[in-house]
Amino acid sequence: MLGPNRYGKSGVRLVKLTREAGRHHFRELTVSVALEGEFERAHSAGDNADVLPTDTMKNTVYALARQNALGEIEAFATRLAGHFLRSHEAIRRARVEIVERPWERLDVGGAADPHTFRQSGGERRLTEVTSADDGTAVASGLEGLLVAKTSRSAFTGFFRDPYTTLQETEDRILATSVRAVWTYATADIDFGPAWRGIRATLLDTLAGHESASVQHTLHAMGEAVLEKYGAVAEIAIRMPNKHHLLVDLSRLGLDNPDEIFVPTEEPYGLIEATLRRGA
Amino acid sequence: MLGPNRYGKSGVRLVKLTREAGRHHFRELTVSVALEGEFERAHSAGDNADVLPTDTMKNTVYALARQNALGEIEAFATRLAGHFLRSHEAIRRARVEIVERPWERLDVGGAADPHTFRQSGGERRLTEVTSADDGTAVASGLEGLLVAKTSRSAFTGFFRDPYTTLQETEDRILATSVRAVWTYATADIDFGPAWRGIRATLLDTLAGHESASVQHTLHAMGEAVLEKYGAVAEIAIRMPNKHHLLVDLSRLGLDNPDEIFVPTEEPYGLIEATLRRGA
Amino acid sequence: MLGPNRYGKSGVRLVKLTREAGRHHFRELTVSVALEGEFERAHSAGDNADVLPTDTMKNTVYALARQNALGEIEAFATRLAGHFLRSHEAIRRARVEIVERPWERLDVGGAADPHTFRQSGGERRLTEVTSADDGTAVASGLEGLLVAKTSRSAFTGFFRDPYTTLQETEDRILATSVRAVWTYATADIDFGPAWRGIRATLLDTLAGHESASVQHTLHAMGEAVLEKYGAVAEIAIRMPNKHHLLVDLSRLGLDNPDEIFVPTEEPYGLIEATLRRGA
Amino acid sequence: MLGPNRYGKSGVRLVKLTREAGRHHFRELTVSVALEGEFERAHSAGDNADVLPTDTMKNTVYALARQNALGEIEAFATRLAGHFLRSHEAIRRARVEIVERPWERLDVGGAADPHTFRQSGGERRLTEVTSADDGTAVASGLEGLLVAKTSRSAFTGFFRDPYTTLQETEDRILATSVRAVWTYATADIDFGPAWRGIRATLLDTLAGHESASVQHTLHAMGEAVLEKYGAVAEIAIRMPNKHHLLVDLSRLGLDNPDEIFVPTEEPYGLIEATLRRGA
Repeated sequence: MLGPNRYGKSGVRLVKLTREAGRHHFRELTVSVALEGEFERAHSAGDNADVLPTDTMKNTVYALARQNALGEIEAFATRLAGHFLRSHEAIRRARVEIVERPWERLDVGGAADPHTFRQSGGERRLTEVTSADDGTAVASGLEGLLVAKTSRSAFTGFFRDPYTTLQETEDRILATSVRAVWTYATADIDFGPAWRGIRATLLDTLAGHESASVQHTLHAMGEAVLEKYGAVAEIAIRMPNKHHLLVDLSRLGLDNPDEIFVPTEEPYGLIEATLRRGA
Repeated sequence: MLGPNRYGKSGVRLVKLTREAGRHHFRELTVSVALEGEFERAHSAGDNADVLPTDTMKNTVYALARQNALGEIEAFATRLAGHFLRSHEAIRRARVEIVERPWERLDVGGAADPHTFRQSGGERRLTEVTSADDGTAVASGLEGLLVAKTSRSAFTGFFRDPYTTLQETEDRILATSVRAVWTYATADIDFGPAWRGIRATLLDTLAGHESASVQHTLHAMGEAVLEKYGAVAEIAIRMPNKHHLLVDLSRLGLDNPDEIFVPTEEPYGLIEATLRRGA
Repeated sequence: MLGPNRYGKSGVRLVKLTREAGRHHFRELTVSVALEGEFERAHSAGDNADVLPTDTMKNTVYALARQNALGEIEAFATRLAGHFLRSHEAIRRARVEIVERPWERLDVGGAADPHTFRQSGGERRLTEVTSADDGTAVASGLEGLLVAKTSRSAFTGFFRDPYTTLQETEDRILATSVRAVWTYATADIDFGPAWRGIRATLLDTLAGHESASVQHTLHAMGEAVLEKYGAVAEIAIRMPNKHHLLVDLSRLGLDNPDEIFVPTEEPYGLIEATLRRGA
Repeated sequence: MLGPNRYGKSGVRLVKLTREAGRHHFRELTVSVALEGEFERAHSAGDNADVLPTDTMKNTVYALARQNALGEIEAFATRLAGHFLRSHEAIRRARVEIVERPWERLDVGGAADPHTFRQSGGERRLTEVTSADDGTAVASGLEGLLVAKTSRSAFTGFFRDPYTTLQETEDRILATSVRAVWTYATADIDFGPAWRGIRATLLDTLAGHESASVQHTLHAMGEAVLEKYGAVAEIAIRMPNKHHLLVDLSRLGLDNPDEIFVPTEEPYGLIEATLRRGA
């Protein structure tokens, strides 16, 4: 009667400060761990003999962060997932997600300060690693990348039913917060350069695209990544349509030639798709 | 190359005010719509001929709310999902989620005021309805139900590895925010009374359970629902462990016999399981 | 050159669990402390000899919570403020704010469970106590009390300038989140009953008022408190106007007789006033 | 009996898209308006004859944004405040706050894209302008500037009372989210360059300071601005101490030489001070 189940620790926050001569490194991660396995006894009988406490997961994150160079988040997540998979025989699958908040060096008098850092914004780098007996899957991604495209974005020729009042437009603001997560066909990846290259490809495509819709641009972004990065097996992209409503100024005796908009939080369109390498 | 994809409108908020003689009714819903289907052309070619605008989805929510009594949220979601499924042949699956924020009548001088309402808290009632050619699936649920149990909650006998420092406890605070979503084996349900009954069963079980762990209590809660409500096919429960840390007052020369705690937001344990009716 | 300054600790969260025979009590407070005084040396010279660490403030909150019955939050805040004022001669003024999140007993099978609690919502009770050499001022209040009034709320006869497009209405939804903070002319108050009585007076007045505007209703609410509670010296009320926009369904071929609304988060009206006992 | 009162519209969001040949400009502002004046009649009698609707304030923001180049936010806020002050004789004081969310051009292939923008983070530029019969006061500022300093930050020699357990440290992480608001002694300011210069001075001082406490560094930052910018009359700075707790790894058999920290949200220290030009 017990179906799919998992348990773990979420929101384990961690700063690692590394001191080089004359220069510090400051990194901030949030780690989540989820385990699946043979936990029937814990659920039905209250027998915890197979249950690794979630408090231990937290300790383990800190201990492994202390004992090893962090490296790319994909490497740290893989190390953690492997550790948990091996920690008790009941555990059949360990999933570790890491989100990194980027801190950049503060620019002081034109030079990067060695000991002061600025959190540069809402965008996050992330990884999702799953380890099981049959191997380890690594995904990389980004989220919270807020962008607006003010040209080459149309929405025309759509299906109209009796409740359709939207006007066609050749020129609208396309604003979105990109979330993209991709998996690699191989583990032999230099994750840092790959991440930066894929991020740039996503953004270059977004900027250059003659957009007929959010779907159309999302598809082009995913396609460009698959074409350029042979090691990417698939990519899932989620792009909310953060609507910018043209303000009706006619009652105030003014025109509004696509100039003054209200950015809105809700409702919002939500477009999601996965693109895979074809057969 | 195009894998799973969907699009829709989220965060469509709606208040319906109904006027009876001498008495108003005030209901607030947030509706989300997601469609799946044959949208290849829109993605790859930018051809929107099959695309029902998300703006139309919003209009439709308002139009159908105006034209019909809302009734239970399950009924309104079913009506909406059916409408979208039939609106264009490219659409193969329509999913509608509704979250209701509860407003209760204000008590004035000992009596329920007919025209003034109070939003009673963080708990929400929700439904998820999916319509496809092969039928309609209805799920009901609740979220944001914040509870704390200060007795009959232990955590002992767990697995210890070298990173385990947690002490066993026979008496801890179990605090959580319950999210539970269940599906019915039949559509012939009186959704309001069923929802209230299942909610009460979840809470009664939580309160009365001799808890050996969050998993143990979660399982008991799901089991109690399945036993008592034959129409429930399965129930998925998600219970974060909102840790309350005992404050160490020994350095202040004081003891702390399980009395003063710090409630924390992160990290948090996260326990999730689905229970199904056995064969 | 150093003008007004203060420092302290905010967000000190605390649960106190009290065990009576057969019955537990569960209370959750968030405490903030701010000190003012002679801190020139700390600012200009980096000399911390007069600086009580904010970490100590946190410890003190926990220690005093352990050593005393909490009682009403006004009493606990007064105890804390007095303690801090006396802790170092540089301190001239200590301000303590406490916000209490209400937990109520869970109803199980028609009776209040002795050991299980439910957080009942967004409304909070609060106090602000300031102690200085010339005495102690105690304010009590509430916030996050979300209410909607669907009758007897008009907005007509307002000033119109060339940018005014709003239509007059005899019948609108007045929705707001009340924040009210009042001070007592005397310290000899039974804070619990007074708080409940004043809260009821605010709500009864809101419900019964023939509202010409938010200002009008806010004023009536404050006036009612001053009339009924002679010990209240003044009351400050803050009521955002949480607009509910009537949906224009005419383009969908439907009317909308004040029935379907969109609740919005921004922009919002914001009305604030203090009422004082006249001379 | 009516004491201090004001009313207005908050959260008026606005994007202005300006099209130059081959290049767009994209700016996002959030405007809040609050009016004070002779509003006794509205409060006590429900007579709205002196009440400019908050809906009109919203319209006015959009109309003036359409009719004029936005320019610096200080200039737009001054224009708005002057407009409201003159709009009705009952209005004695108009306060306009504007917060600008920065959008920067997306870098595509090494060059700034003319039509695509990225929201660069949590930091905001802001202004607060108050117009009354006796003149207009302009303040400029920033908020949400999240920084961490990992060297030259100590906290020693502080006052110890019986509840003090904090250890002295010569080397701690000082992390904060700076909010600074300053007023100018003259209106003859080139607001853009001044803002950028003051921001740089704040950050340069923070980075270079031998910090004995948050108070000490805050004071040095304000002092540096007053010394370098003669036009600044006073500056108010608010710096929460976003604590980074050293993780105790000793129970895991590991040391932790100031390397692994937990960043925490609450409780937090809060340090606030205003610095003024001396006589």
